[in-house]
Formats: sequence, structure tokens, C-alpha cells
Amino acid sequence: MPLRQHQEVLEVRTPGLGLHEITARVAKSIAVLGFAQGVAHITCMHTSCSLAIQENADPSARHDMESWLAKIAPENDPDYTHTAEGPDDMPAHLRALVTRTTETIPIRNGRLLLGTWQGLYLCEHRRRPHTRRLVLHVTGE
Amino acid sequence: MPLRQHQEVLEVRTPGLGLHEITARVAKSIAVLGFAQGVAHITCMHTSCSLAIQENADPSARHDMESWLAKIAPENDPDYTHTAEGPDDMPAHLRALVTRTTETIPIRNGRLLLGTWQGLYLCEHRRRPHTRRLVLHVTGE
Amino acid sequence: MPLRQHQEVLEVRTPGLGLHEITARVAKSIAVLGFAQGVAHITCMHTSCSLAIQENADPSARHDMESWLAKIAPENDPDYTHTAEGPDDMPAHLRALVTRTTETIPIRNGRLLLGTWQGLYLCEHRRRPHTRRLVLHVTGE
Repeated sequence: MPLRQHQEVLEVRTPGLGLHEITARVAKSIAVLGFAQGVAHITCMHTSCSLAIQENADPSARHDMESWLAKIAPENDPDYTHTAEGPDDMPAHLRALVTRTTETIPIRNGRLLLGTWQGLYLCEHRRRPHTRRLVLHVTGE
Repeated sequence: MPLRQHQEVLEVRTPGLGLHEITARVAKSIAVLGFAQGVAHITCMHTSCSLAIQENADPSARHDMESWLAKIAPENDPDYTHTAEGPDDMPAHLRALVTRTTETIPIRNGRLLLGTWQGLYLCEHRRRPHTRRLVLHVTGE
Repeated sequence: MPLRQHQEVLEVRTPGLGLHEITARVAKSIAVLGFAQGVAHITCMHTSCSLAIQENADPSARHDMESWLAKIAPENDPDYTHTAEGPDDMPAHLRALVTRTTETIPIRNGRLLLGTWQGLYLCEHRRRPHTRRLVLHVTGE
């Protein structure tokens, strides 16, 4: 069977700061596409939120990841010069810089092939709720 | 020639903490597939190990990367709440968070197209040896 | 229309340390290829520079990202053992370790599909100007 591709934009509403799991949201979009095998690229169209694949079993792991990102790239660092968009903006860019703009996940038997404890997260780095746009691009058969 | 794809799971045994080069292991799998040109995605199915492409010439560079990851995400940080799985577990998630779940490498002339000093590493962030599963997905011709 | 692929090496001259935007350079290469829809992978063939997709509107954001990378992975850390290639070499590997070797960008209507404020950056982590090689691999139709 020849390879084909599919591309769509997904809109995701975030409640504000934190790692928000979107595995089910993306899995649902994949399920209707009818790819038995392939590869999915999920790309974040923003620079103050990002993606990560991380443990989704224990909420304490997610909590500690959020705290750690806040520690390595804190708000109100006196060295910041990019402050016009609020105290949470520059930390948002830095936290996005070291996580992912695109995550790539294989598809097998029509489903995302993730490890037992893996979930896909949209990391919202701004304090307020946002509507975020992700591109889902699948190549497969 | 029409594009085709290949997908397989690779099992890699790690000796415990550290950056372990797997370039030859992946190159060997690629070599038998007969893709002249394409793109390979290598995806880690775990959240306490990760991937990186880094210098493979001088072991001191690898040593310093390991030390630095241990410094920015140390064991026994009193802020951690996710401690039930041992002192090396939460640091493992954090070190995985800022390195890669998937690395993407072009294929040219049937081989991984890497720079002179580049090697692919499986970064084992847990202290004990583990058997890790990676998905190799290739699209090409 | 069947899927096809294209692969080429791009050479980019950097003026030395800093985040240098290459969106226009890559967009120009994409434009002539005639892909209506697809996915582009841009891969850095070096371990002392890297890629990032980040805000390209306000130069102060770029400045703060550069300062922050210099703070989390500073020059002249007495813990470094990999020092033979100069004081900017080990920090370069560390800064590359937490940013990207490959960035993946969807193509739509023949163009890179990026968010309003997103730009692709080649992050040069060495002080001196360098000629850097990137692989552009596109799969699409």
C-alpha cells in the first residue's frame, strides 16, 4: 500500500501554568485516520508553551517537573530584559527552549506507540489559560 | 521508486547511569533495511532514560555531560515529592525532560548521516542496569 | 499524488556566539521544492551548535535566552574535565544537549507552517564564527 499523509491543526485549551496531558486528545485524532503504521509529529505553534513526553502515572512526578522548571527558569530574575509582556513571559520562553516544539511518536496497529508510563503533555508556561494550536502531521499507511 | 517505511522495536541493555553510545547498534539495524535515502526516527519508550546526539570522540565530554545533568537535577533535592521509586527516579525524569524522547537522523547512501563527531546516545538516568525499548521508524526509498 | 522526499545539505555561516535566525534561509530552500504539504526535518551535523524554534519578534527575548544558556552552562566551571578545546567548548556541548539537534516543521501550501511569533534559530555555542552544516529532509507531496 502506498504511503500517504495527513495534516491538521488541533486546538487545545489550557487552564494556565502546568503540564497538561493531551495523549487522549491526540490519540482520538489518530484513531479516525486509519493509519495502521506510521509516524506522528505533533508541533507546537507557540514559543511560550511546549511539548514533553513524560510519566503519566503519578501526579507527584508532574508536580516536581513543574516546580523544577520554575526553579531553573524563575520569574523575576533581575537579569531579564524581556519583561514587557509580564513576569511569566521570559520564563515561559526559557522553559520552552529546553523542552520540545515537536514530539515524534510512532503509530502501530492504528494507535500511538507509547511506553506503559508515557503520556504526551502540553506544557503551558504562561499563568493564564490559553487556546493553543498544535499541528498533527502523520506519514504512514 | 515509491516511498516505503519500516518500523521495529530495538532492545538495549544499559549498565546503569550514564550516556551509552548506541550509534553502531542503530546503524546495524539501518544497514540491512536497504534504504538508500530517507529519515530515521529513534524513539525512547521510557521516561527515566532519554536520547541525545553528542560528541563521541573524547570520553571527557561525555563525563562532563553526565556530571552536569547530575548537578542541574540532583538526587535528594528536598523539594521533590515524587520519591517513592527511589532517590534516582525524580532526577531521571528531570534529566529526560530536557534531553530527547525522539532523535531524528537522515539516511543517505544507506547509512545514518551524522557529523564527524556525532554519536547517538541512550542516556540511562537510573542507577541500575535496565533493558530499554526504542522504536526505530524509517521512511524513505 | 504519491509521496516523495528531498534531502540536501545547507551550509550556514555563523558570526559566533548567539542565536541566529535561519527561518528565511530554510524557507527559501523549501519554496523551490514544490511540496504543497509535508514535513521538514532540519538536522544539525555538529555537537557545539544546535537548533531551536523561538520567538523572533523582540530581540530582547533572544538576548535573555543567550544570557540564560550562559548562566546554566557557564564557561570555566572548575568541574569541567573536557577543556582541551578551549573554555567555550564544554559549555557549547551542554547548551546543545538541552536544545535540539533536529527541529521538525510541517509544510502547508508550500511553506513552513510556523506560528506568528516563531522563528528557527541556529544556536551557535562557540565564540568564533563557524561554517555549519544542516541537513534538510522533506517528505511530502
